Amino acid sequence: MNLDGSGNQYRYKKVEQELSRHIEAGDLLAGDKLPSLRQMSRSLQVSISTVSHAYEELEKRGLIESRPRSGYYVRSELRRIPTPEIKTVQKPEPHTVTKNKLILTALETVGNRDILPLGVVCPSNELLPTRQLSKIMSSVIRDNPLETAGYETIPGNLDLRRQIAFRSVDCGSDITADDLLITTGAMEALYISLRTLTRPGDLVLIQSPSYYCFLQLVENLGLRAIEVPSCPENGINPDRVAEITRTFDIKACIFAPNFNNPDGSLTSEDRKREIVKNLAERKIPLVEDDVYGDIYFGDSRPGTLKSYDREGGVLLCSSFSKTIAPGYRVGWLAPGRYLEKALEIKATTNVSCVSPTQMAIARYLRESLHDRHLKKLRAAMKEQMDKMRTEIGLSFPEGTKVTNPKGGSVLWVELPEGKDGVDLFFKAREEGIGIVPGIVFSPQDVFSNYIRLSSGAPWSEKIQSGIRRLGELAAM
Amino acid sequence: MNLDGSGNQYRYKKVEQELSRHIEAGDLLAGDKLPSLRQMSRSLQVSISTVSHAYEELEKRGLIESRPRSGYYVRSELRRIPTPEIKTVQKPEPHTVTKNKLILTALETVGNRDILPLGVVCPSNELLPTRQLSKIMSSVIRDNPLETAGYETIPGNLDLRRQIAFRSVDCGSDITADDLLITTGAMEALYISLRTLTRPGDLVLIQSPSYYCFLQLVENLGLRAIEVPSCPENGINPDRVAEITRTFDIKACIFAPNFNNPDGSLTSEDRKREIVKNLAERKIPLVEDDVYGDIYFGDSRPGTLKSYDREGGVLLCSSFSKTIAPGYRVGWLAPGRYLEKALEIKATTNVSCVSPTQMAIARYLRESLHDRHLKKLRAAMKEQMDKMRTEIGLSFPEGTKVTNPKGGSVLWVELPEGKDGVDLFFKAREEGIGIVPGIVFSPQDVFSNYIRLSSGAPWSEKIQSGIRRLGELAAM
Repeated sequence: MNLDGSGNQYRYKKVEQELSRHIEAGDLLAGDKLPSLRQMSRSLQVSISTVSHAYEELEKRGLIESRPRSGYYVRSELRRIPTPEIKTVQKPEPHTVTKNKLILTALETVGNRDILPLGVVCPSNELLPTRQLSKIMSSVIRDNPLETAGYETIPGNLDLRRQIAFRSVDCGSDITADDLLITTGAMEALYISLRTLTRPGDLVLIQSPSYYCFLQLVENLGLRAIEVPSCPENGINPDRVAEITRTFDIKACIFAPNFNNPDGSLTSEDRKREIVKNLAERKIPLVEDDVYGDIYFGDSRPGTLKSYDREGGVLLCSSFSKTIAPGYRVGWLAPGRYLEKALEIKATTNVSCVSPTQMAIARYLRESLHDRHLKKLRAAMKEQMDKMRTEIGLSFPEGTKVTNPKGGSVLWVELPEGKDGVDLFFKAREEGIGIVPGIVFSPQDVFSNYIRLSSGAPWSEKIQSGIRRLGELAAM
Repeated sequence: MNLDGSGNQYRYKKVEQELSRHIEAGDLLAGDKLPSLRQMSRSLQVSISTVSHAYEELEKRGLIESRPRSGYYVRSELRRIPTPEIKTVQKPEPHTVTKNKLILTALETVGNRDILPLGVVCPSNELLPTRQLSKIMSSVIRDNPLETAGYETIPGNLDLRRQIAFRSVDCGSDITADDLLITTGAMEALYISLRTLTRPGDLVLIQSPSYYCFLQLVENLGLRAIEVPSCPENGINPDRVAEITRTFDIKACIFAPNFNNPDGSLTSEDRKREIVKNLAERKIPLVEDDVYGDIYFGDSRPGTLKSYDREGGVLLCSSFSKTIAPGYRVGWLAPGRYLEKALEIKATTNVSCVSPTQMAIARYLRESLHDRHLKKLRAAMKEQMDKMRTEIGLSFPEGTKVTNPKGGSVLWVELPEGKDGVDLFFKAREEGIGIVPGIVFSPQDVFSNYIRLSSGAPWSEKIQSGIRRLGELAAM
């Protein structure tokens, strides 16, 4: 182990993380005895009190337990929790979507500050640069009272589009400001894309599972959906996509290759390239949701499908809702060769986006505050997710599986066979805990024993006891 | 004449307004001699310099001319300009709408600050409470950094909905906060309404002329439109509506009874009541656009169609874009009995509206600044419109007609037979003047010799010479 602690006060955290990683990796098994404080202090070259602090934290999290006069042990209840398998849909078939009522019930918790936000996929405000952004917003408003109050153009604020275009280099794209359309969050980008590409009755190809708001949109636009299985470990399989597009008349695909919500799956770069190539040959447009692309836990940002697009057939949707401020509702669409039609849809939906929020985010990005913030955010999101996974392993009934995503902020939990996610959703809501039942992530009922948990809020005793209570409810 | 001038420096304005009213009413005819400065000063009990200042202003505006050693005369070129007649559509017929390309060209001038804004229907920022609002926005942001950055609920900010519900009493409605859904401007309210009520291929009834964005939306949603003529003087005729709804299977009506854009027509309260009653009997929902309702020039606010609605069949759409800040994009929808479906559409379009702008407008309204502002705004809008009408009378070719609206901020100009509005639009745009050709206000080509001018900007020499130049171009 190599721990060059930067800053004394956080040194214990590094020890804690290092140890929990070994426990989770199975290097230390349930019942194993941990090295004594003295041994550990010597081998890590940190003080005894640092190790002691770390052990206390691990005990609080339920990973280890102290046995009187004997030392610390990995908790015997601790078990390695497996990840869910790919859920194969027997035969891909078109489905009309009819989950709207249930989804709307689940959505009622959005913005409701009285409910423990395990259902809301968004880093909580404490992790976002809200104070910096507020300062910037105030000065933007003060410096530009007229411009902030006036209409923006239909494509959106030019400064903002330039900043987004500039940053798209990170994910391998070469879009320019003129390729972009600012939207009211990524949801609007997706909505504009589907209105642009489809008519009622058309068939679209989606991942299974898929973000329920996509399904709701598919339902509301009168479309039919066909599903390609998403593998929690490897994402979308290009061969399956090719098969389905050969058999059915698909008008558009909707894929989230980077940390798909809810299964957190990451599709590899090779697979991305192949998917884009195949679809381009068949002239099938592809709507890409990349809202989690910046929240990767690995060394480098995963590429977008858009970055492999040579024909303008990929419509990239993203936003700053998961990284800067959800309430600012600033998203964007790079609609490729469909720009003209997309602008028409934007104009007839709500003309143009809110001016001051666009200007504030443009200035925030220009001041180069974002990269440092993202780095911190990624570390925090990873830590929170790790802690939540561990707690699920401790609290949920035997037979539970949970994903181990390489980014994003959701965990996809498979409850033991026979358990019902909707049932758990209603029970949890009654106790003020917001989760989302798995069934709403597919037009079919294949995910009835799944739930999705968001790890977007900083780890706290409140969250920990929420997860514990969920585990109890799941076991009932 | 009775002029109790309040504040010396604006006394001349009152003299100017009084005289221009008499000229426009025809009490003083072209070529008539005006009273001398001394006579006028005596009869109005104001100073000679005040009268002199007023005469100078009237001369600048081209209403009167001074003849050396003789005094001031009403200009001989001055003529009373008639209002356009109702444009009867021979036989009401369903039409598919195909004006999108042309409309989009016209819309390109929105938000473009280099073009003389005679095409943009919005009071210019100088007339809006932008400085007050900026201050409020700054303090809202400072006081609530977390709340302004976080998601709002789907129906929107509760304080804001309460304020809007409270103010709806003015237009005769008794809606509550729970009846309301906040939208990204009134356009989104209209879009949500039509998505809620219709499916592609459905037939909707619209006014003729109608706001071109409505037509564009009708086109984009794959609907067909049938037109009921709008009379510049009296608005919508309930008998015609009844006739058409008996003959055709109308799924929804879209009416703007208060100062319809572009013809400025006001439908009387009796007619409103009858229209709502008839449609309720046939169970046909009615989408109402009331964005100009607060900009009335008479003594009291006209009622909404919603205020006569007992069955929840009226979907009221409005916004603060014309009265507070277009760039804040704060609108609302009172969707009556369609609330649940409307919330679904909102959620799948863009989840919820921008948080800080909603909070700022809620606080602005709570501080009771709005009524005083509206009073000033109405006076300014009336004055600007009067001046523009007069200038059109002076500058446009013989045979031109122009509306005389009782509110709103647009003039609907009928060019002499044979003149082409689209031609004038392109010529004007080349010279940096933004107008909108009449043809885009109907699915048919009946308004090919019309244009719409916005009088939303404070009267200035630049605007005056813009109108003059337009008149020259129209005469070519």
